[in-house]
Amino acid sequence: MKSLPFIYHGQSSDWLSREDNKLTVTLATEKAVNFTKVLLRHEPDNEEYLVEMTLSKTTEHLTYWQTSFQLNSDRDVTHYTFKLLTECGQYWLDAKGVSKRVSPKETHFKYNAQHQPPSWVQEQVFYQIFPDRFCNGKPEISVNEGEYLVSGGTKSVVTKQWGEPVDTEGGNAGCEFYGGDLYGVESKLDYLQNLGVTALYLNPIFTAPSNHKYDTSDYLQVDPHLGSNEHFASLCQQLRDRKMKIMLDAVFNHTSAEHPWFNLQGSQDSLGAYQSPDSPYRDYYFFNGDSQDYVGWKGIQSLPVLNFENQQVKDYIYASDEAVIKHWLKPPYQIDAWRFDVIHMLGEGEGATNNAHYVKAFRDSAKQVNPDCYVLGEHFFEATQWLQGDQEDGAMNYYGFAHPVRALLAKLDIAFDHIDINIGEFIDWQAEARAKLPWQNQLAQLNQLDSHDTARFLELVKHDPRLFKLASVLLFSYVGTPCIYYGTELGMMGSHDPDNRRTMPWERVDNSEYHDWFKQLITLRKANPALQKGDYIPVHHDDDCFVFARKLDGNTMLCAFNLCEKTVHRQLPVWRADVHSGTFNGQLCGEISYASNGLLNLSMPPRSALLLLKEE
Amino acid sequence: MKSLPFIYHGQSSDWLSREDNKLTVTLATEKAVNFTKVLLRHEPDNEEYLVEMTLSKTTEHLTYWQTSFQLNSDRDVTHYTFKLLTECGQYWLDAKGVSKRVSPKETHFKYNAQHQPPSWVQEQVFYQIFPDRFCNGKPEISVNEGEYLVSGGTKSVVTKQWGEPVDTEGGNAGCEFYGGDLYGVESKLDYLQNLGVTALYLNPIFTAPSNHKYDTSDYLQVDPHLGSNEHFASLCQQLRDRKMKIMLDAVFNHTSAEHPWFNLQGSQDSLGAYQSPDSPYRDYYFFNGDSQDYVGWKGIQSLPVLNFENQQVKDYIYASDEAVIKHWLKPPYQIDAWRFDVIHMLGEGEGATNNAHYVKAFRDSAKQVNPDCYVLGEHFFEATQWLQGDQEDGAMNYYGFAHPVRALLAKLDIAFDHIDINIGEFIDWQAEARAKLPWQNQLAQLNQLDSHDTARFLELVKHDPRLFKLASVLLFSYVGTPCIYYGTELGMMGSHDPDNRRTMPWERVDNSEYHDWFKQLITLRKANPALQKGDYIPVHHDDDCFVFARKLDGNTMLCAFNLCEKTVHRQLPVWRADVHSGTFNGQLCGEISYASNGLLNLSMPPRSALLLLKEE
Repeated sequence: MKSLPFIYHGQSSDWLSREDNKLTVTLATEKAVNFTKVLLRHEPDNEEYLVEMTLSKTTEHLTYWQTSFQLNSDRDVTHYTFKLLTECGQYWLDAKGVSKRVSPKETHFKYNAQHQPPSWVQEQVFYQIFPDRFCNGKPEISVNEGEYLVSGGTKSVVTKQWGEPVDTEGGNAGCEFYGGDLYGVESKLDYLQNLGVTALYLNPIFTAPSNHKYDTSDYLQVDPHLGSNEHFASLCQQLRDRKMKIMLDAVFNHTSAEHPWFNLQGSQDSLGAYQSPDSPYRDYYFFNGDSQDYVGWKGIQSLPVLNFENQQVKDYIYASDEAVIKHWLKPPYQIDAWRFDVIHMLGEGEGATNNAHYVKAFRDSAKQVNPDCYVLGEHFFEATQWLQGDQEDGAMNYYGFAHPVRALLAKLDIAFDHIDINIGEFIDWQAEARAKLPWQNQLAQLNQLDSHDTARFLELVKHDPRLFKLASVLLFSYVGTPCIYYGTELGMMGSHDPDNRRTMPWERVDNSEYHDWFKQLITLRKANPALQKGDYIPVHHDDDCFVFARKLDGNTMLCAFNLCEKTVHRQLPVWRADVHSGTFNGQLCGEISYASNGLLNLSMPPRSALLLLKEE
Repeated sequence: MKSLPFIYHGQSSDWLSREDNKLTVTLATEKAVNFTKVLLRHEPDNEEYLVEMTLSKTTEHLTYWQTSFQLNSDRDVTHYTFKLLTECGQYWLDAKGVSKRVSPKETHFKYNAQHQPPSWVQEQVFYQIFPDRFCNGKPEISVNEGEYLVSGGTKSVVTKQWGEPVDTEGGNAGCEFYGGDLYGVESKLDYLQNLGVTALYLNPIFTAPSNHKYDTSDYLQVDPHLGSNEHFASLCQQLRDRKMKIMLDAVFNHTSAEHPWFNLQGSQDSLGAYQSPDSPYRDYYFFNGDSQDYVGWKGIQSLPVLNFENQQVKDYIYASDEAVIKHWLKPPYQIDAWRFDVIHMLGEGEGATNNAHYVKAFRDSAKQVNPDCYVLGEHFFEATQWLQGDQEDGAMNYYGFAHPVRALLAKLDIAFDHIDINIGEFIDWQAEARAKLPWQNQLAQLNQLDSHDTARFLELVKHDPRLFKLASVLLFSYVGTPCIYYGTELGMMGSHDPDNRRTMPWERVDNSEYHDWFKQLITLRKANPALQKGDYIPVHHDDDCFVFARKLDGNTMLCAFNLCEKTVHRQLPVWRADVHSGTFNGQLCGEISYASNGLLNLSMPPRSALLLLKEE
């Protein structure tokens, strides 16, 4: 089958400009192919309109076309695609690529004229901290052995020595404490800033019995074993002084069974929902009649699910002036972002009824206090429906980044089942995930190799430093905002939860083979706007390697990945990134390559990644 | 690349059964592949749940797996897919087919538990009549030359002799009259019933100045040049007596500029919206302030667009007890179906704001009077968003049938641009279109080769009777309800509108090479439930030919299409339709073939289609 011509439309400012309700778009086509007519297709009122584009410029290898059109008035998101005619056929370009027939709606280019993520997000390098395991800065507030009961009163808390293995078999996942706290985080700000990190994402810090604190018992108090509200306010101020950002974890789908509203243990003076059908909080949860049967998240009894049909719950969480979502966005804290836990499951009744309504309401609540608040959703699977602009700014990008990278390099899916995709299938998966979102939301996706919910990546690739480094280059060069799970920069190991939550091995900082590598990648990311918000231009892929360019306003970075065990040599069509000739400087190893006539001859060592910066 | 294993799930009653809120599903896998675990994936609350399926049965070539799960409680449509593990990898099955990674949401299998199309639709053979061109049954009511003005008073009506060419260049498209009427339709009911037609779709019949009558001036009166309300009631009764159905064309997006509400000509006693800003109907339309500038459909001034924000418009069209939609569904007419013209464009303001709300309101209005009313939408392009169950039952299936068939066989797209797709791309296009809809809505799609809006198919394939016949076999064997545009059964020619609206050549009935061919296809369709509502099982495709089976409850029809100029011989894996051995009887030419060991050796003559019925 004849290969398809190269046709490209980016969605960065190089290709798209908006003036009021008018969008001006640019398209590039392969100069070697004679297009007799180039049309932009859009749907102002759900009906197809075709606007002829005019030739605006030619370079050595590309022809540029341009036109303007009105953004949709009847909805937030404007969809558009391109139809191109040649003497002997037609081609279509949508956000997923070139095809020979009209594009399916879900992969049309999308522009949300009403809702866009805050632009600061794409410039960040996030760092995720699981507080109990990062650093113990104030031992006197650490949990004491047997201090209290957890898991609905069935288990006593356990304390562990820093560095001691986590209990992966004894069922103590939630009640082992190592003593990490926010004073520890504070003490490591120099470390983090030296590494290049610009934003922190803290796993939950509000009062909760477990070590992971996804079982909140007080949404308005920092857990006393992690710090205090006053200290947290000070930490936030220190971050602001360093021009760093902070994101907190919001767990609103359910509370702890120890939350006073629920009060499984029947402590103190309050009449909790569990104790009595007459409790003022009874309707905050889902009980089976007057019984003590209630709905727990995924059936877990220590996590009773909140009922968002209840007006008090709405008011408390997002609707009132004093709502939790707003509270932490205001002084003295002024956090910059919320990461909403399992937000897709939240709704009315046991299911996710009217979920979109609540996600929008959470967003509105946050943006009322700070229009630049980053609204991030946790979704382990496809999150397209939450990422069209009006719900979330971005998602924890398991679907479009972590899962495909894991599948490609570790040959494992999220259930640890073997998966065997080739590079073409990997590229297609990522392209599909990107294509269904507005570009700005693609940039605001939070990409991670691993997290508190997934095994450490180095463990997944069976300690192969080459694959780990290759993946880390992808993390910092791919579309979306990178986030390092604490210790990944030190090559931390660990299988799935809770083994992925080992204590930070501070002793390794000075002799880790990865620390400086990550620091270098972060520096490159920050120095090159193309990596932060440049277009993704597919340059080449075959069974052994794949190459894309990130490009913005003259800043061009070629990102090349060789997966096979041999050095591969390829002649790369860098003309696709509109490069005719010139020098490419290797940013990781210092090698220099020269392009001529739109082609670059490149050697890629076994299982390695190259970042090559086009000399301006 | 290794080919993918055969994995199949149909959505007919052979594969799916529902009891209250529980769905029991069956899956078939290729017996030669050892699946170690087979899982059904669904999202009861937007979170992934995997349910292990149990082996329920094996046949010579297939292994069957089964499980049950709860339909979603939080929404109408339940999505599900399948994950299958082997010793060395994993496969996924969704409604589009088999892949090696988790399926994108849009092609998950879909089951709408709340809204399903009326089951009678899939059993019909529709016949579309453009009334002015079908048959003149009562010359005394025909339009007289110069009788009145059309096109906003700029042109006088013209009368033409039956058989005289339509004016394709003089700009008389809308004002030429040939005298066809509903008396003519009545006089041809025997003809239609003899052909096998079971349902009529009439282009608009309400009072309107043009010949096409998409410019309604009275929604409650049959146009006097076509008949009368009394005669139409009698026609409906005759159809009921013959157990035939009738669908009318509803044009609610806009009216005629001659409608008394608008009254461009300023006739009679009413104060039309056009005459005065003080008109009681002024707000029925979109005027620019107090001026006489108004919004016409696609800028056409004779078709002022209705404003659905206006409560009187809502009441008149769908909301009141006497609304137009309800009126014609009640006695004495009791029509069976509405075809809503350009329904995707309808909404508030100039755009399609809140379109889904109005489409649902139209549906509700119709179903209130007759829950079995067929709600059909006209969409020239992808209609996925209207076809999830709660809006339309079906669409005029340009996107998933007419366009791909035209592209494949005529190498032309709808704009008459050359398009060159191969059989693989054709199969993929149709599969994508089907996969995004619930199965019942797939069956209620209205498939046509041509219509009053598209060129005659025989003209498109440059009079090649072989391609025309091949396409007609596809029309009657593909998923969806077939509709014949009047005269297609006689091989009528004609390019795009208005040349596709020539008068019916009644003199050809007795010597048309196509009439009996269509009659035969209709007979086969009606005799074989598999063709009406059987599953679509992909059997084979390559660059020359494609073969699928339709199968339901032991009724198995193999549908084979050879596009190339040579006879091709193929060994077909009919085991995919769970056929091990037996006789296949050719239904069109009488040839007999024998399958053994799951394979069928078949010769397919050049550019031909075969329908082979498995002997039970």
